[in-house]
Amino acid sequence: MTRRGRRSDHRPSRDVDYRQLRNPFAPHEIYTSEQIADIHDTAVRVLQEVGMLIRLPEARAILGRAGCAVADDDVVRYDREVVAAAIASAPAQFGLVGATPETTVTVGGDGVLWSPASGIPHAADLDRGKRPATMDDFSVHMMLTEHFDVMHVNSTGPEPQDIPVELRHLHTAPAMLRLTTKSPPIYARGSPQVADGFEMVRIARGLSEEEFRQASYCYTVINTNSPLQLDIPMAQGTIDFARGGQALCITPFTLAGAMAPITLAGALVQQHAEFLAALVLHQLVRPGAPVIYGAFTSNVDMRSGAPAFGTPENVLASFASGQLARFVDIPFRSSMASASNVVDAQAAYETNMAMWGSLLGGSHFTLHCAGWMEGGLTVSWEKFVVDAEVLQQVAELMQPTPFGKDELAFDAIAGVGHGGHFFGESHTMERYQTAFYDPIVSDWSNMGTWIANGGHDAAARANRVWKQIVADFEAPGLPDARDAELSEFVERRIRQGGAAPVS
Amino acid sequence: MTRRGRRSDHRPSRDVDYRQLRNPFAPHEIYTSEQIADIHDTAVRVLQEVGMLIRLPEARAILGRAGCAVADDDVVRYDREVVAAAIASAPAQFGLVGATPETTVTVGGDGVLWSPASGIPHAADLDRGKRPATMDDFSVHMMLTEHFDVMHVNSTGPEPQDIPVELRHLHTAPAMLRLTTKSPPIYARGSPQVADGFEMVRIARGLSEEEFRQASYCYTVINTNSPLQLDIPMAQGTIDFARGGQALCITPFTLAGAMAPITLAGALVQQHAEFLAALVLHQLVRPGAPVIYGAFTSNVDMRSGAPAFGTPENVLASFASGQLARFVDIPFRSSMASASNVVDAQAAYETNMAMWGSLLGGSHFTLHCAGWMEGGLTVSWEKFVVDAEVLQQVAELMQPTPFGKDELAFDAIAGVGHGGHFFGESHTMERYQTAFYDPIVSDWSNMGTWIANGGHDAAARANRVWKQIVADFEAPGLPDARDAELSEFVERRIRQGGAAPVS
Repeated sequence: MTRRGRRSDHRPSRDVDYRQLRNPFAPHEIYTSEQIADIHDTAVRVLQEVGMLIRLPEARAILGRAGCAVADDDVVRYDREVVAAAIASAPAQFGLVGATPETTVTVGGDGVLWSPASGIPHAADLDRGKRPATMDDFSVHMMLTEHFDVMHVNSTGPEPQDIPVELRHLHTAPAMLRLTTKSPPIYARGSPQVADGFEMVRIARGLSEEEFRQASYCYTVINTNSPLQLDIPMAQGTIDFARGGQALCITPFTLAGAMAPITLAGALVQQHAEFLAALVLHQLVRPGAPVIYGAFTSNVDMRSGAPAFGTPENVLASFASGQLARFVDIPFRSSMASASNVVDAQAAYETNMAMWGSLLGGSHFTLHCAGWMEGGLTVSWEKFVVDAEVLQQVAELMQPTPFGKDELAFDAIAGVGHGGHFFGESHTMERYQTAFYDPIVSDWSNMGTWIANGGHDAAARANRVWKQIVADFEAPGLPDARDAELSEFVERRIRQGGAAPVS
Repeated sequence: MTRRGRRSDHRPSRDVDYRQLRNPFAPHEIYTSEQIADIHDTAVRVLQEVGMLIRLPEARAILGRAGCAVADDDVVRYDREVVAAAIASAPAQFGLVGATPETTVTVGGDGVLWSPASGIPHAADLDRGKRPATMDDFSVHMMLTEHFDVMHVNSTGPEPQDIPVELRHLHTAPAMLRLTTKSPPIYARGSPQVADGFEMVRIARGLSEEEFRQASYCYTVINTNSPLQLDIPMAQGTIDFARGGQALCITPFTLAGAMAPITLAGALVQQHAEFLAALVLHQLVRPGAPVIYGAFTSNVDMRSGAPAFGTPENVLASFASGQLARFVDIPFRSSMASASNVVDAQAAYETNMAMWGSLLGGSHFTLHCAGWMEGGLTVSWEKFVVDAEVLQQVAELMQPTPFGKDELAFDAIAGVGHGGHFFGESHTMERYQTAFYDPIVSDWSNMGTWIANGGHDAAARANRVWKQIVADFEAPGLPDARDAELSEFVERRIRQGGAAPVS
């Protein structure tokens, strides 16, 4: 497998590791430490005085036993000490185990993890346009995810709408586990589906049930129903993932001006309160269970209510959310999103703005990094490749910069002297094949050459790239015994009718 | 004049100052301070042992009188102490005076100055395609430059090739001075043209010759002829701008692998050496004259030799060049460039990567910020608007973040409670018209609405924006007496045949 799908001239490839990245950028802070403490205190006050509507009886019971006040209207008002205890017991970092050492990663610290578009109803490409996603689209997403080393963790990708909901997880999880080596997400769509998901991951990884519970092999994202509600499947998922020892990302869906206050500080108060509300439940079930501080705060178009991404407000929210995550010392998750309907300049600049918000926000785990379009309604294969191109370039910025006598190149400069050029110098010839990042989408040819080659824009070039990756793809697969056990499990569960997405 | 050309619904506009920006981002450093000192020392050693080919006799004489060794082949080998003295006498920051207090800026410190594409032979737009630039294109460039507050300093823009070279400056400078209030560039194309340029700026600003020399009212960029050469017009420009007290940006054109070593450290050694070579000449003519450390180090496609921009190598060079500029304590200039032939995703991601290289490199003065395409062969009006959109969004990130009881919004959160939304809340209604950045290009509508509205991509929408700006444009003009004096000067110089671009 190569990281660069386009080239076929067998030049020596650069030895750059895109798998274990460290964020070299200092976090950018927009609030003082006193202001961050103020946002935190106000969020705790919201939990104490306004409370969170928790729709799952078991969750209310757990919170009530810990000393929170459960009212008749299912609103739970939190105790400040219980919140503090949950923050204290949550780990600052944890491992997420993939199928190989290379895809086993650390969430937290100075690590950077990228995962492509997740939970998307439609797929699109230049050949076929936009359509409800199918199992074929799901497989393409997995192939692209596996191909690019800058995709560190798997995502749910497009929803295969040609598979009934009660059977869908029994098709997607096996495909994911056979097509990729990267840690899979498991939807929190009710305990039966979660149990199936855990079992499929356990089988694929060749683990005992006890071994499975001792480390994180998969993860899920739960969204609070902003403002200040936690619904039944999300609360159940929080409990199930805590019990299973699998990673939970808690992401309030706080669009400023719509489901959250229009002011940035207010939206962050609500985001933080909703995160803490679910965190408390999670840590009460299993103190120390792996958890991620998810932030999705952005703004909406106040004329239409349409969500916007990669906006200044979205970027500022990422900076501030990173500060809040560090305040509670829990790994931070952000997103790289765009509202554009097409793979154009807007798609690129919004995604890039969101990316720098995530990099300078100190995000440990960034979702929707590749392919996300239309505010998350569509995953585009061309955008997947364009986004991967940018991420590879950012991964290059994270590599150590070689430095020494050879790099300073005094002798080469003295040798070329005044005028002339370095093309033929031995200092150049020894390095020219591997000195620079070799792009997969960027076209640097002049206008004449570019037109002669068809005048294809970046999206059209990306179209060729993804189709070549899919054509060349070789699935990593599973060891034979595990593959057979997985097939047996899946066939049995399908015969049993699968599992409806309910708890 | 509004900053947002598209809207016409007369909503209250946000009171955000895009004119006097401060860079809130800490500089990112890829080299240790010892490594930066090593690059500097190696560059000085290049000047001592290899030297710089200086083609202008007067420049060689100035350097020779200061103690540098001038050889028969016109190569000047520098004295280390002379280099140190030039660094010591160059100012860490200086003012650049525009026509108004709002367009009078500081170069250096924590200031951020942006200037659009400069020195471009062709112009392009979606209606007419690419063509050799004309005086009409030059005027459009000036209108767009004046319109956007995020364009802080003027640029030379497109070259009007319908005007003979000996008369061109007598057409462009007056147009620039009448159409915009921002500090103009004056090409260093020989002393006669520079003298004309200084005189036109002096007249437009209503200054005596003595007043003009006491502050910077205009600037120029000189490029060394890499490797290690300074040609006659560039050396003459360095001398003329020092004598005139006008700002000089010294920018070596060091494309790694072509005119400079293929290694980043080597390309930086050469960039730094060439900068210092011209700096010494400049500071010998007038110690303390305003000067800028220009960096243009990027890489080339090693297959074709084509220059590339916004690449990882380009971004790393910006980070490191900022370190070198801070090492010598001289304001830093970088660029926002792209090699794309069309206003597509590549154009956006390359320009955005270069932009973050400039922001995190601590660039004080960034050129080619809007409209640059095809590695600088074309300025595109659509790209100008797309780039201005991104710069406005970055300018929003630089604003102070309001914080207080109202922003924390506890009462609004308590008022909305669980479920529901914030659209109708008084906390929202009081702020919704001005809370968020209002884009000029971004379209956040859903796919159906977007298609119903014509399905225009970002470039097509930008096309409407620039045409509206031009249609609505009102030139600031000059006070009548200065306008008449300027006309009289220009007419006389044209009658005299102008000035050929020679020294």
